[in-house]
Amino acid sequence: MRVITLLTDFGLEDGYVAAMKGVIAGIAPEAQVVDVTHLVPPQDIASARFRLLTVAPFFPPGTIHVAVVDPGVGTARRAVAIRCRSGSCLVGPDNGLLCGALEADPPLAVVHLTDPRFWRTAAPSATFHGRDVFAPVGAHLARGVTLEALGPAVPAEGLLTLGLQPPTPVSGGVVGAVQATDRFGNVISNVPGGLLPGGGAWRASIGGRILPGHRTYADVPPGEPLALVGSHGFIELAVHRGDARNVLGASLGDRVAIHWA
Amino acid sequence: MRVITLLTDFGLEDGYVAAMKGVIAGIAPEAQVVDVTHLVPPQDIASARFRLLTVAPFFPPGTIHVAVVDPGVGTARRAVAIRCRSGSCLVGPDNGLLCGALEADPPLAVVHLTDPRFWRTAAPSATFHGRDVFAPVGAHLARGVTLEALGPAVPAEGLLTLGLQPPTPVSGGVVGAVQATDRFGNVISNVPGGLLPGGGAWRASIGGRILPGHRTYADVPPGEPLALVGSHGFIELAVHRGDARNVLGASLGDRVAIHWA
Amino acid sequence: MRVITLLTDFGLEDGYVAAMKGVIAGIAPEAQVVDVTHLVPPQDIASARFRLLTVAPFFPPGTIHVAVVDPGVGTARRAVAIRCRSGSCLVGPDNGLLCGALEADPPLAVVHLTDPRFWRTAAPSATFHGRDVFAPVGAHLARGVTLEALGPAVPAEGLLTLGLQPPTPVSGGVVGAVQATDRFGNVISNVPGGLLPGGGAWRASIGGRILPGHRTYADVPPGEPLALVGSHGFIELAVHRGDARNVLGASLGDRVAIHWA
Repeated sequence: MRVITLLTDFGLEDGYVAAMKGVIAGIAPEAQVVDVTHLVPPQDIASARFRLLTVAPFFPPGTIHVAVVDPGVGTARRAVAIRCRSGSCLVGPDNGLLCGALEADPPLAVVHLTDPRFWRTAAPSATFHGRDVFAPVGAHLARGVTLEALGPAVPAEGLLTLGLQPPTPVSGGVVGAVQATDRFGNVISNVPGGLLPGGGAWRASIGGRILPGHRTYADVPPGEPLALVGSHGFIELAVHRGDARNVLGASLGDRVAIHWA
Repeated sequence: MRVITLLTDFGLEDGYVAAMKGVIAGIAPEAQVVDVTHLVPPQDIASARFRLLTVAPFFPPGTIHVAVVDPGVGTARRAVAIRCRSGSCLVGPDNGLLCGALEADPPLAVVHLTDPRFWRTAAPSATFHGRDVFAPVGAHLARGVTLEALGPAVPAEGLLTLGLQPPTPVSGGVVGAVQATDRFGNVISNVPGGLLPGGGAWRASIGGRILPGHRTYADVPPGEPLALVGSHGFIELAVHRGDARNVLGASLGDRVAIHWA
Repeated sequence: MRVITLLTDFGLEDGYVAAMKGVIAGIAPEAQVVDVTHLVPPQDIASARFRLLTVAPFFPPGTIHVAVVDPGVGTARRAVAIRCRSGSCLVGPDNGLLCGALEADPPLAVVHLTDPRFWRTAAPSATFHGRDVFAPVGAHLARGVTLEALGPAVPAEGLLTLGLQPPTPVSGGVVGAVQATDRFGNVISNVPGGLLPGGGAWRASIGGRILPGHRTYADVPPGEPLALVGSHGFIELAVHRGDARNVLGASLGDRVAIHWA
C-alpha cells in the first residue's frame, strides 16, 4: 500500500478532485490518498511549488505526489513523472511546480508521460489532465508500474524551473530570492533559516529596504516590517499585523539578501 | 473493500460530515470513504444532482454513492437506495438528487429504506438522516448487505425527478433544458456535447436569445454571450468574464435549443 | 486498523494538515485518518472543544482523536494523551480543548507526553506540535503503543477545563452555562435537551432575558429570540434569522437557566 498525495487548484466546491480519486480507486484500490490542498490560488504555480516542497519531506519514502496546477493544459507543455532519491515520485506538468521539492530530494529519473496505456483514456480531455493523465499515472505507479514504463526518459536538467536565484553564500551573508507569498501577505524567501549563524543579530534587505531579523512578529510594533524564520523553515519578510507584499512591493523572484554582523 | 462517496451541503466547518464518517467506520471499517463535495449550496438539490452525475462515472463499479441534500428531512419524503446497472449503488433522499446519475447508469432495483436494523438508531434525528440513516445504510451495503434487505422494493418509475425536458432530437438540432448553474454563473444544459455534429457552426437559443457556439470563452470579447461544451461534457451557456445566469435570466428547467446548419 | 481523527484550526489552504498526515502515514500506514474539521476559528479553544464533544461519540471504540487548537504551543502548557472508558483516546494540549468529550466518556488514564521517542523529532518546532508531537503520538497509539509508554501518568483531576458551570438541577429546572457559539450566532448551552420534561412549556433565561422554549426557529417571527434543542442535542438560544450572540450579549461561561412549569 502506497500513499498518493494530491495538490491542485481545483477548489472544493465541484467534483474535480473526487473524479481524480475515483480514477485512482479504480486502478489502485489499496492506495491511500491524502489531500495536500486544493485551494492553491488558480494557476498559481509558485504557490503550489512552495506548498509541495514544504509538505513532501514529511511523507514516507515511496509516496507519490500528484500535483496539478496547470495553466498550460492542452498546450505542448510536457507531462512528467520523476523518481527522487528518497524513492518518492512526483507526477505533474513540467512547468516549475515540481522543481522546489527536487531541491531537497534530487531526481534520479525523469520520464515524459507519453504512453496512453497508463492514462484513463487515449483521448484525454483538453482541460482536465488531472483526471485523465496525472491521477491514473500516479495510481499505476502506486500499484507497481515502473517509472520507465510510462514514457521515454528525459534529462532532469531539462525540467522547467522558476528560475529563482538559489541561496548563495556571500561575505557575511547569503543571497536568495522570493519564492512565494502567503495569504497573509508574508513574503517567503528561499533562504533556509538554518543558514543563519546562531545567536547574533541579522537583517534582510529587499529592494533597498532593510528589515531587522527577529524571532517572532510580536518583537516589533504593529505596522513595522521585520524578517524572521517562518514555521516552514525559510527566512520570511513580514509586517506585524500588516501585508509585507504590498508594503515592500515584492514579487516572485525578487532578490533577498541576508546579512549578519 | 468498497468505496463510499459522500456528497452533502453540510459544509466543512462543523462536525456533521465527520459524524457520518464515524458511523461508517464503526460498521464498515474496511470501506474507503471519498468526499465528492460538502459545499453544495444549502438545500440546492439541482446543484447536488449535477455534481453527482458528473462524478459518479469515474468511480469503479460497486461504488456506493451516499448523497444528502435533503430539505425534506423529517417529512414524508422517502429515503431510498438504488442498485444501478454498473453495480454501483446510490443512497439518499428521493427528491430528484439521485435522478441525474441514473441517466447514464440506469436503476436495476430500488428499495425504500424502512428497516431500522440498518440505521444507526431506530429513532433517527428529525434533522440528520445523513448520520442516522444514509451513512449507516451505505456502510452496510459496503460490507455486503444486499439492497433487498434494506426495505421493500419500489418501482424505479416512481422515483422523483426534477422534471427536466430530456435531450430530444429535432430537425437540425436538439432541445433540452437547463440542469444547473455553477458558481461562475454559467448555465449548464443537459444536452451532451457529443450530440453536436463535428466541424460545423452551431448555436444555442434560450428565452429568445441566440448564442453562437464556440470552443472556449476567449473566442468572444469580454461581456459577450456564447455557448460551448464545458469540461463536464454538456453544452453550457456563458458570458465571457460575466454571469450568464443573470444576463440571460435563466433558471432550472428553462428550455435550451441547439441548432446546426 | 484504527481510526485517527484530526481536529485543528490550521485551515485548508496550506499544507499543515497534510504534513500531519504524512507523519502518520510513515508511522501507522494502516491507520484510517478522518478529518473532523480544520476550520475552527483560529485559537478558539471553546469552539474546538464543542466540535470534538459532538463528534467523538459517533466514532467506534478505540478511535484516537488528535485535536490541536493550541495558542500556548511553545510555552509550558502540557501535552497529554488520555484513555477514556470507551477505549478511545484523546491527544492534544491540556488547555480545555479535550475536557468536553470527557464528560460523556470519562478518563481512565492520563499521561504527560514527555518521551521524545514517540515524537517526530526530539527537538520539535516551537510552533507546530501538531506535526511533531501530537500526530506521531496518535500514530504510535494506533499501532499499539500503550498510553503508559508515552510519559508519566498525571491525575485526571488536574486536567484544565473551561470552568463552565455543569448542568445542575434546581427546583423546576436546571442551570448551566454557555459552552459555545456557532457561526450563525446561536448561543449553545451545556444543558442537554434530554433533561427537559416531555410535553410541557419551558423557557430559558440568560442575563435577565427570558426566551420561550420552542421546537424550531420558525415557531417565532423573524427577529424574535427563542430557545430550542439544537441538532447537537443541547439547549440553544437563538434569534430567528438573527444573531443571538449579539442580541443577548452572551459569551462563553455565562449562566443559562432553564425552567419549566
